[in-house]
Amino acid sequence: MDTGRCLGFKAAGMHAGLKKNGAPDLGLIYSDTPAAAAAVFTRNRVQAAPVLLDRQRIRSGRAQAVIVNSGNANCCTGVRGLRDAERMGAATAASLGVPADDVLVASTGVIGQPLPVERIETAVPALVRQLAPEGFGELARAIMTTDTEPKLVSRTGTVGDRPYRLVGVAKGAGMIRPDMATMLCFVCTDAEVDAPLLDRALRRAVDVSFNRISIDGDTSTNDTVILMANGQSGARLQTAPDEQGFMALLEGACLELARWMVRDGEGVGKTVEIRVQGARTPDEARQVADTIAHSPLVKTAFFGQDANWGRILAAAGRAGVPLDPDRLDLHFDDVQMVADGVGCGPAAEARATAVLKSPAFTVTLDLNQGSETARLLTCDLSLDYVRINADYRT
Amino acid sequence: MDTGRCLGFKAAGMHAGLKKNGAPDLGLIYSDTPAAAAAVFTRNRVQAAPVLLDRQRIRSGRAQAVIVNSGNANCCTGVRGLRDAERMGAATAASLGVPADDVLVASTGVIGQPLPVERIETAVPALVRQLAPEGFGELARAIMTTDTEPKLVSRTGTVGDRPYRLVGVAKGAGMIRPDMATMLCFVCTDAEVDAPLLDRALRRAVDVSFNRISIDGDTSTNDTVILMANGQSGARLQTAPDEQGFMALLEGACLELARWMVRDGEGVGKTVEIRVQGARTPDEARQVADTIAHSPLVKTAFFGQDANWGRILAAAGRAGVPLDPDRLDLHFDDVQMVADGVGCGPAAEARATAVLKSPAFTVTLDLNQGSETARLLTCDLSLDYVRINADYRT
Repeated sequence: MDTGRCLGFKAAGMHAGLKKNGAPDLGLIYSDTPAAAAAVFTRNRVQAAPVLLDRQRIRSGRAQAVIVNSGNANCCTGVRGLRDAERMGAATAASLGVPADDVLVASTGVIGQPLPVERIETAVPALVRQLAPEGFGELARAIMTTDTEPKLVSRTGTVGDRPYRLVGVAKGAGMIRPDMATMLCFVCTDAEVDAPLLDRALRRAVDVSFNRISIDGDTSTNDTVILMANGQSGARLQTAPDEQGFMALLEGACLELARWMVRDGEGVGKTVEIRVQGARTPDEARQVADTIAHSPLVKTAFFGQDANWGRILAAAGRAGVPLDPDRLDLHFDDVQMVADGVGCGPAAEARATAVLKSPAFTVTLDLNQGSETARLLTCDLSLDYVRINADYRT
Repeated sequence: MDTGRCLGFKAAGMHAGLKKNGAPDLGLIYSDTPAAAAAVFTRNRVQAAPVLLDRQRIRSGRAQAVIVNSGNANCCTGVRGLRDAERMGAATAASLGVPADDVLVASTGVIGQPLPVERIETAVPALVRQLAPEGFGELARAIMTTDTEPKLVSRTGTVGDRPYRLVGVAKGAGMIRPDMATMLCFVCTDAEVDAPLLDRALRRAVDVSFNRISIDGDTSTNDTVILMANGQSGARLQTAPDEQGFMALLEGACLELARWMVRDGEGVGKTVEIRVQGARTPDEARQVADTIAHSPLVKTAFFGQDANWGRILAAAGRAGVPLDPDRLDLHFDDVQMVADGVGCGPAAEARATAVLKSPAFTVTLDLNQGSETARLLTCDLSLDYVRINADYRT
């Protein structure tokens, strides 16, 4: 796996006693120097303690470390939860010798159980000692919950002739839905980028990546995406092309992580891109795509490799968008299944069934009443999804 | 099973060759005299041919027969589908010797395949010969798709000292969601009720029964509820108490059928009533209940008998309703799980786990910010749900 080095950044991961199975459950990112920072958080009204804490701290546009645990979400834990999140950050700050306000905190795992913060406080000094430039892989492992593999991507860009690096890790699995796609994601770059630009770039990248994927329609209480830039490469974004190059690099990295999340979603066997076109407005296109992408009947048909296009039209019909059923066209990849609202017959079905046997394909629904489009990446609803989520806590 | 007799009504069911397994797939209701009639249909924008036909015919407020098939939804079948629905009605009208406009048509089954209407035309004369006062059980059997049992209820009311009867049959299974709950339901009464009152009574009954249940959040293209009153008992509704008595009887029958549908939903092992109280408006209460009732993570936790209340709070949090997480109270039956947004600890969890082992229980979420409430009946998301729906067509 990519070790994801990035100048002036170190990372680490270890087992601190939060997960019963002994797997890594505590991770740390550290920048040798204070870095510009931006973050995007869940839009769920129920927000975990670390999210509430980070929302305040990120206002400075600066951070030097991120401490993150898996196995416990520290959510719905009341005043104690807030105090525990602060303690988690304080222990890290003390061990690193940086101001507490420059430490961001993230958690993922079961909701509603008190965080065993003493175990984290005990583990932090050892975690700090483990910090290493090639530690991002360990970090990626430490933030996993039901992910089957750690997710790390990296990119190299240039400003003039100066190269700079960007490395990102993420965890996904269940509870993925647009606005705000639910997961943890941490991206570090050694380019020099000021905080306002960093914030703009991150929001745009999230919008075209994590906000366009869906696994089960649930959003979590802990979603957090953090982007830090420490300037250690000496590559300083100055011109518009520099900025555009950086944004493209960041978007590409986020998109790769987002697709990886869907592919590795809980029980996912198929990743399916839903494209809705010919809508009157972008909102209507999005709404139709969203309803199709979340329909349990559509998703079980994908799992059954059944070209059951009627369920897709039925889902579109209940999206709350005015549409003319007699003008709908539907394709599975390049196989036309429906023309003017009527099925194209057994030959088309046979060809479509072949498409559905592949692990990734595209469903395109044309409403034929405008020129707006929307895309969403979704997945099948499998027996394993139910098994994993019925057994998650037990 | 209740044979559901009702004066002046006959019913029948038989196999007409639409289902491959030889099960009954064609049903008929006939009133000896023209009856007052009302109907409620799916709100899905994609509507099956028989729904489009019935919407026109029901305007007369009168009907004498209903012909219904299972195994094929006659939906997304274009101009041919409309013609086939008319042919299905015409064959019935000819065989019964009644005007075509007084025959309503309903279909349920796979979407997008041409209706084999010739088989229906061939079968109708035999079906008419089978008509019998005690035939409602056969009818209930003929409209089943993935239901595991036929659903028939009956009631007896009085006007003064005159008794009257009400009999209802329904099919449900998947694709059940409020507004408009997806299913077929036919109710006959030998009371004398005029069409406007019949329409009012039906809309109210549907609103408190079928519109308050949910299995998978999908709504179908074929939902139809038809109510016919032929006055053959001689019991004529005249006073306000007469009307109230009739409405209560109808609501009770619809509610019983609705609960039965959830209990017999595809792969359903548990029926769960979601109660949201303390909301600022009825809409907000409904929206929170709806989001909880449709959350795959909540429903898989029910399946896993896991008192995972964090998922319920997380679902409430993404319902798009302003709420204060620190004021939420949650009960599983009478076991308080969450007080002021914080979990009540291991003892409460242990007691709640016992609640979750029962086949039916109530989840009550109090938002503590108003006095409005909403109730929804939902179910677990089981391995069998996925199995049934992945294999439905194959």
